[in-house]
Amino acid sequence: MTAPFKSFDPQRTIAELKELRELTGDDDGAQRVAFTATWAKAREWLKAKMAELPVKETTDAAGNLWFTLPGKSEKCLIIGGHIDSVPNGGWLDGCLNVLAGVEILRRINTEYSGKPPITIRVVDWADEEGARFGKSLFGSSAFSGNLDMDEARGLTDKDGIALVDAVADFGIDFENVKQATAEQSNAAAYLELHIEQGPVLLDLDQPLAVVLGTCGVERHKITFNGQAAHSGSTPMDRRKDAFLAAAKMAPEIYAIADRNGGVCTIGSCVTKPGIVTSVVADCQITLDQRHIDAGSLQKMLSEAKDASERFAEEAGATVSWERIWQIAPEPFHPELIDFCDEAIMETCGISHRMPSGPLHDAAEVSLAGIPTVMMFVQSLHGISHNKIEDTKEEHIAQSVAAMDALAKKTINWILTR
Amino acid sequence: MTAPFKSFDPQRTIAELKELRELTGDDDGAQRVAFTATWAKAREWLKAKMAELPVKETTDAAGNLWFTLPGKSEKCLIIGGHIDSVPNGGWLDGCLNVLAGVEILRRINTEYSGKPPITIRVVDWADEEGARFGKSLFGSSAFSGNLDMDEARGLTDKDGIALVDAVADFGIDFENVKQATAEQSNAAAYLELHIEQGPVLLDLDQPLAVVLGTCGVERHKITFNGQAAHSGSTPMDRRKDAFLAAAKMAPEIYAIADRNGGVCTIGSCVTKPGIVTSVVADCQITLDQRHIDAGSLQKMLSEAKDASERFAEEAGATVSWERIWQIAPEPFHPELIDFCDEAIMETCGISHRMPSGPLHDAAEVSLAGIPTVMMFVQSLHGISHNKIEDTKEEHIAQSVAAMDALAKKTINWILTR
Repeated sequence: MTAPFKSFDPQRTIAELKELRELTGDDDGAQRVAFTATWAKAREWLKAKMAELPVKETTDAAGNLWFTLPGKSEKCLIIGGHIDSVPNGGWLDGCLNVLAGVEILRRINTEYSGKPPITIRVVDWADEEGARFGKSLFGSSAFSGNLDMDEARGLTDKDGIALVDAVADFGIDFENVKQATAEQSNAAAYLELHIEQGPVLLDLDQPLAVVLGTCGVERHKITFNGQAAHSGSTPMDRRKDAFLAAAKMAPEIYAIADRNGGVCTIGSCVTKPGIVTSVVADCQITLDQRHIDAGSLQKMLSEAKDASERFAEEAGATVSWERIWQIAPEPFHPELIDFCDEAIMETCGISHRMPSGPLHDAAEVSLAGIPTVMMFVQSLHGISHNKIEDTKEEHIAQSVAAMDALAKKTINWILTR
Repeated sequence: MTAPFKSFDPQRTIAELKELRELTGDDDGAQRVAFTATWAKAREWLKAKMAELPVKETTDAAGNLWFTLPGKSEKCLIIGGHIDSVPNGGWLDGCLNVLAGVEILRRINTEYSGKPPITIRVVDWADEEGARFGKSLFGSSAFSGNLDMDEARGLTDKDGIALVDAVADFGIDFENVKQATAEQSNAAAYLELHIEQGPVLLDLDQPLAVVLGTCGVERHKITFNGQAAHSGSTPMDRRKDAFLAAAKMAPEIYAIADRNGGVCTIGSCVTKPGIVTSVVADCQITLDQRHIDAGSLQKMLSEAKDASERFAEEAGATVSWERIWQIAPEPFHPELIDFCDEAIMETCGISHRMPSGPLHDAAEVSLAGIPTVMMFVQSLHGISHNKIEDTKEEHIAQSVAAMDALAKKTINWILTR
């Protein structure tokens, strides 16, 4: 005698996540890098899961994979995620989001006997991670229309294979990827669950948080130019030490982040000539600054520029800045934020509001003007993009249940609009 | 009618330096890297110059090239230098020393009609710079007996060619290089002229200095281990930022040098994973510390270790130290220092006493127990190891004259011993 079929079962999501891990992971972690055979295998597995439901499966011009359960209204609720991972990634990042969507779709399909009041879509965005070509949010930025075509056209992987050619192998005509914007049609709201990837909920000892939006990012290369000089023959007061100037930035960015309530990171430092017997002539560091408030982000940037000029002058060096990338903060929809907060409270009895430092596909959807909100579930160790990435099964189950509660509230909200 | 032959003419040294530059330099500077064809060409040119004198030319077991003018006594005065250069080097570093020796030998030969009271030797040390195999003072450390055979046996150049094989092409049996210690026999004093390679004399506006000795050197790799973390999702107070800890060392080494009167240099910084989106997990810097006083050098090292541990702790990181190399300070001979000071005063009317931060072959000779002193001549820009390395011709001429005066004083001193 088999157990009766449950129309909604977060434990099933956990079982499916483990099944996917077996299928597409190895001893080093998840290997579902977008536009690879393992990624394609994961998608085939997902399609087979969805084949049990009366959904229409389509792939858009950018390779995003859609499952649509048509409702009485064409207005639609989209639940999204990404089945692609970084190399040696974790078992939850991206695919938890998709599989929560699958479970919610099962519940809605049963509850409304295959015909919900509005249309429900689950999307698996193509190449959220950007692990192979160094550029994240490929599919969702094609959907939003924000993809920088000239930049993407020039991207190659470490073997020199162009993104343009790699996507062609998966049936995507690069020059037409922005036709994916057509999928925006009738979209009334977008929901996304994601592991936090940081330690905030862990430190609070809370399972879930509502995400207020994604932080704006300012990303720069900062180059200090001093002068090479013999480490033995050059008196200390005659040096033009580019490393000294750059190094002073490290404690300074902590002070800037502290004053302004954002985060700042120097992730890389390269010294030239970079030999033990010479004062550093040229030192290049990278700076990544993030804040949910645009004004505060600009203040952090301007304080960092001022400091760099002061430190350069003190070291007898010069400094130049080159922007690598920037994105404005993207606040999520205030009513959906409230619904998400309520859904978390109802499920767990406690909630938390926080911005997302990392970018997510949700930011692109929100930029397209679609009311959007995200939910975070606690990450053990505060770690992702690593095989040790993990979340308590209890918290995974709570996240799927809270997302389902949020979906209910959002469907009702869409019906009143 | 040709000009009469002058037995001593510092202007001839300048002309010969220019001749050598034409023969062995290119648009990027001097190219007399040891154990290369250009170096061999420079040595053939030197041998041709010396062939005009009644000297015996020999090459020792380590490839050092000796020119010996036998005197009435077997006791000998050695004047040394190195004709090898770094790639893209300057026109004076090393070869000025040798050519000053040649000119002094000409004067002595004429003055004593080929039979001076003591034996005079000019030596061109093999591979002072260590530019190709990364290890300096090859020839002079074989002469002193200090060459680390196990280390040298393992050295390869950037093309993977072993030092052992490269020297074999120049007739050197690596396993026998320490037979060069035989050349110490009867050595009563050693003199070496060198460009300063720093800005001290330039800042003082003085042509020449007597060198008190070579600084001791402590050279370490310092590795800070923190933890990689997402630059967007990790609150500032949850980071274990290896770069933060390492960077704090930069201003600290200036304070340490200032307190102790030595020099300290962080010449290289390597960050891992070294990407814009991650807190630095591991950061390795190199530290080079130099002082003429052994106790002060140890104090500088111990202060740097204490600081590194403090900064590591503050950053939530750990730190480990690995010694790359060390050498004790080598003070030169007090009586020869006084003679050198007198010779400079007599030639220029003003003198200066200073330690040498850079190492020189003279340190190895002194370590072998042979009374030694060096003289520095001002470097324009305070720069060497670069095609812009330069010294005023007036100062070059003064340096050759002062070295000759020093040689006279030293010969007299040897005769009284």
